[in-house]
Amino acid sequence: MLRIAVDMDEVIADALGEHISRYNREFNAELEKAHFMGKHFRDAIPAEHREAAFRLVHTRDFFANLEVMPGAQEVLRNLSSEHEVFITTAAMEVPLSFEAKYQWLLTHFPFLPPMNFVFCGDKSIIRADYLIDDNARHFKTFIGTGILFDAPHNRDVRGYQRVRNWFEVNELFSRQQVAV
Amino acid sequence: MLRIAVDMDEVIADALGEHISRYNREFNAELEKAHFMGKHFRDAIPAEHREAAFRLVHTRDFFANLEVMPGAQEVLRNLSSEHEVFITTAAMEVPLSFEAKYQWLLTHFPFLPPMNFVFCGDKSIIRADYLIDDNARHFKTFIGTGILFDAPHNRDVRGYQRVRNWFEVNELFSRQQVAV
Repeated sequence: MLRIAVDMDEVIADALGEHISRYNREFNAELEKAHFMGKHFRDAIPAEHREAAFRLVHTRDFFANLEVMPGAQEVLRNLSSEHEVFITTAAMEVPLSFEAKYQWLLTHFPFLPPMNFVFCGDKSIIRADYLIDDNARHFKTFIGTGILFDAPHNRDVRGYQRVRNWFEVNELFSRQQVAV
Repeated sequence: MLRIAVDMDEVIADALGEHISRYNREFNAELEKAHFMGKHFRDAIPAEHREAAFRLVHTRDFFANLEVMPGAQEVLRNLSSEHEVFITTAAMEVPLSFEAKYQWLLTHFPFLPPMNFVFCGDKSIIRADYLIDDNARHFKTFIGTGILFDAPHNRDVRGYQRVRNWFEVNELFSRQQVAV
């Protein structure tokens, strides 16, 4: 049995999609995910919009209604029958997000025990065999093996095993096949 | 440099004191800490009060105004100059507590980086050299060394190094002396 730590934003929850929607409404823009290839959000918008764009995320409800990433539920349900799955999210970067993130996990991942939810900042504190994350910076101090979950902003990051979607995660870890 | 993980309730925050105050107000009682020696809160009160006593803790503000345990600030400020200090609290057991706990840490431990705060449930996920905690059950799966912080409920627990207060923690870890 492996212990697999899984990030939330851009891995199981589509935070970028929600950020783009809110940005487009706020600035009457028509950005799409393709616009953010190889870039973090703040670097892909006009400098004068950055502060407002930051504030769009730092609200109590931003994380309440995020879409689930395709296949995340089916694959994590499958993996959690064989392995220990922990959700490890850098929630300390967005302190208003705690309750919304907790409720979102209960709603969309009811098969994971809440005792396996971890809200942290510095992920070097996590003891696990694998960390599936879209931010490679966490892998530098992580004790286990980092697996880079493909996201627009990390398209140019090299040096880590990359998975493009949850179907590929399932292939990596599971001896059972699962429909996603 | 060591990494020292530190629990919140009964270790740096006097949750039992607040629980007793609220219980006494609710039931017009006059309990004191001495009443809880060797017992968890629920086992030291009449069975018919247990549900109400549980609800006293599960509020948004319970954790907002807890007293700091004597010496915790001075000793952690001192230890954090030599070691890595993380606050690791089983907040998932009380999901309404997230914001109050975060604000309380910012207020009383402003010298600790919020990226070192961890809200978790199962503490086996914590990678650290030491865990200072009043609940010995976390030590069973913790990878490092558990240090039992003395509390009324754990008075009869054996098998772990016990510290009676923050002055003793300081003696254990620090090469500098500190006034507490």
